[in-house]
Amino acid sequence: MMSHKKTIHPIDVVLKKRDGLELSDEEIRAFLAGVVDESVTPARIAALLMAIFQRGMSSRELATLTDAMRRSGEVFDSRFLKKFTVDKHSTGGVGDKSSLLIAPIVAAAGLADPMISGRSLGHTGGTLDKLETIPGFNTQLSLQQFGEVIAACGFSMIGQTKNLVPADRILYALRDHTGTVESPYLITASIMSKKLAEGLDGLVLDVKTGSGAFMKKFEDSEHLARLMVSTGESNGTRTVAVLTTMDEPLGRFSGNWVEVWECIDIMRGVQHPMYADLIELSVVLAGWMLFLGGVSTSAEAGKERAAELLQDGSAYEKFVAMTKLQGGDVSVFEDPAAFHKPAATRVLTADRDGFLAGMDCTEVGWAVQRLGAGREVPGGPVAAHAGIEMHAKIGDRITKGQPLVTLFTEDASLLETPERMLRETIVLADRALQKAPLVRQIITA
Amino acid sequence: MMSHKKTIHPIDVVLKKRDGLELSDEEIRAFLAGVVDESVTPARIAALLMAIFQRGMSSRELATLTDAMRRSGEVFDSRFLKKFTVDKHSTGGVGDKSSLLIAPIVAAAGLADPMISGRSLGHTGGTLDKLETIPGFNTQLSLQQFGEVIAACGFSMIGQTKNLVPADRILYALRDHTGTVESPYLITASIMSKKLAEGLDGLVLDVKTGSGAFMKKFEDSEHLARLMVSTGESNGTRTVAVLTTMDEPLGRFSGNWVEVWECIDIMRGVQHPMYADLIELSVVLAGWMLFLGGVSTSAEAGKERAAELLQDGSAYEKFVAMTKLQGGDVSVFEDPAAFHKPAATRVLTADRDGFLAGMDCTEVGWAVQRLGAGREVPGGPVAAHAGIEMHAKIGDRITKGQPLVTLFTEDASLLETPERMLRETIVLADRALQKAPLVRQIITA
Repeated sequence: MMSHKKTIHPIDVVLKKRDGLELSDEEIRAFLAGVVDESVTPARIAALLMAIFQRGMSSRELATLTDAMRRSGEVFDSRFLKKFTVDKHSTGGVGDKSSLLIAPIVAAAGLADPMISGRSLGHTGGTLDKLETIPGFNTQLSLQQFGEVIAACGFSMIGQTKNLVPADRILYALRDHTGTVESPYLITASIMSKKLAEGLDGLVLDVKTGSGAFMKKFEDSEHLARLMVSTGESNGTRTVAVLTTMDEPLGRFSGNWVEVWECIDIMRGVQHPMYADLIELSVVLAGWMLFLGGVSTSAEAGKERAAELLQDGSAYEKFVAMTKLQGGDVSVFEDPAAFHKPAATRVLTADRDGFLAGMDCTEVGWAVQRLGAGREVPGGPVAAHAGIEMHAKIGDRITKGQPLVTLFTEDASLLETPERMLRETIVLADRALQKAPLVRQIITA
Repeated sequence: MMSHKKTIHPIDVVLKKRDGLELSDEEIRAFLAGVVDESVTPARIAALLMAIFQRGMSSRELATLTDAMRRSGEVFDSRFLKKFTVDKHSTGGVGDKSSLLIAPIVAAAGLADPMISGRSLGHTGGTLDKLETIPGFNTQLSLQQFGEVIAACGFSMIGQTKNLVPADRILYALRDHTGTVESPYLITASIMSKKLAEGLDGLVLDVKTGSGAFMKKFEDSEHLARLMVSTGESNGTRTVAVLTTMDEPLGRFSGNWVEVWECIDIMRGVQHPMYADLIELSVVLAGWMLFLGGVSTSAEAGKERAAELLQDGSAYEKFVAMTKLQGGDVSVFEDPAAFHKPAATRVLTADRDGFLAGMDCTEVGWAVQRLGAGREVPGGPVAAHAGIEMHAKIGDRITKGQPLVTLFTEDASLLETPERMLRETIVLADRALQKAPLVRQIITA
């Protein structure tokens, strides 16, 4: 591909990064081309990945790598929509179903949200697994169909197509195989290449920090957020990151159908005290999206508008329209609690009076997955009706014997381990501790 | 292999080294076992190699890795010899034929030298290529035959057998492929695993420093020397490193047969002013070997004894005996100059009066190889009668028109480039500069 210029040898790219030197755009693009056409061996790619892990990348290198990855396959050309396109991405949390609220809000505000999501892996849930609990719902649309749904109702929610960012598929498999997943540079390139392949004018990132986040330390989350914002902006997409606390499951439910249920409740105006933090997060993020898209004059005004669109039924109307367009049976929305049919249920109660002091939220995520809601290896099945309901938030006063968590599963034999995990990780104490605010920091270019 | 203990997953070994943590002996041995039985993929090995390149290894890790590599195939069991076994290894220089003098000296002193050597690669020559210019000389003995030759005459010089340290063959190919050759830790493990597979009681390392050395900087050479000494001693072999200057070719000739010729001359008492530095280096290194083996009470006394064995014909007698045992035709030793039959010769002369100020000795090495004496890729042929004769040492007074270098080749078309390389790199100046001493430092445990 570089034959008209001086030839770039992949090994020289490895040597430069190995020694901490900055790679040129041509070197990055030539290496990536070799990754995709398989002329560079997995061993040599692995060596570069480990060198990047150790040496990092400059903003320019990272922007170029991300762009090269984005362009490695088909991209969604959103120009025909004639609308500002904006999406939201989260680094992954427990009980975080905010996408299901935010995308319809944004569509209701007149913007377009081309949302391509992932599946559950590890301790966090996946938007696709939740949506697929709606009977008939099809997440596997072509980019052509994707565009038609967005044109019709302002948003669509699908899974990654086979030809979208193939470079990431190759690199991610190798990162997983070679212990280089946790590099903030490689995480940024992976996430941002897929998001930018959506053809976005704007992007709002929800970067989690806390015990349930992929990155537990605030400084690490902040670093990742800055890398992603810089990479988005360098590639022509207005990008904002919101650093949010992930120390307990968001909202009321964690699982698959139960999370859809929760969102339908909220969009239909059903009140529940456990819904508050999820609503707050959703309108904050949607507010930034409305501001980026010019619907509101500030993120604060956007947040107010988002709350209105949620409360007045506009978001629900969009969600129903999108669900129908993607083949989903919306009749189950009428009584979502009735559609929830776990095979077994167990209630974990408080063994003392006190306050809910905290938990290892990653452990809570694993408990949810062990109930059947998630998968430990890609491609495995998930149970639609497995999950948990939390009955209290950190800081809440607790009375002995009161329910703390209800566990749901489709296989009663799976109850023991998650129940023990939850009992061991949820801490009750004599006094309420200072609680971290939900929104910690806003990072803009 | 570790099934009786807790299972060690290769990926966890990569993750630990990636994060700069020290690997346990069990982890190193389990990973290496997976390298040899091919259960660990090249990509995962590459990731570990790059992590080691970046993070280094502790003395203990390095000793364990080296031992695990040594034991990956057959090893030479030297105990039946009932002698102190000692060998010398050099990190590679230009015109360095000291092995051909040292091994027979050591054998003449009553010790055993089981010397397994390499071939020319890059800018440095290889002992095997030199020996194979002797008609009939066989360097490809089995370890059984190797032991028989040593038992008969005190030493043998052969090439690496197929089953000796197979782990190094796998790792070296991957290092070459992934840009991780230059790690002093991986260099140490590669060199020392092969030397320790010779079943040595003692080992003297000649670690080169200067413009013709693999490592140009003194501190890098010193670091490598300390790693190798520590690794040898940890594995039960008395090990000494001698840091020596490699700023110009050693002795008079650089090439293949011409280097054998030079050694035969020296062992037969032929005098030549250009032989002095080679003789000095050889007796210093042999002196340490005699000291380690208990023949002499100090390295200095060993050096004197080595010089005696060289001058009194004892070393030559051993060399002739070994050559005959390995099938070589010693009749060519009678007039080595007459056996030298290059197809073309060219003399490079001084274009001014002055002093020989210096040269890039690596460039001189490449010129020798380009004349046909070496190979740029493993497995290629070498020309027996290609090479150079140096006519002056750094610091020597030079008169305009005097010969500086004579070039020999078996293919006259190869003369141009090496002649230009030599003319450009050899610097004449108005005054003699301070010259680095041949022996720079001794490193012992």
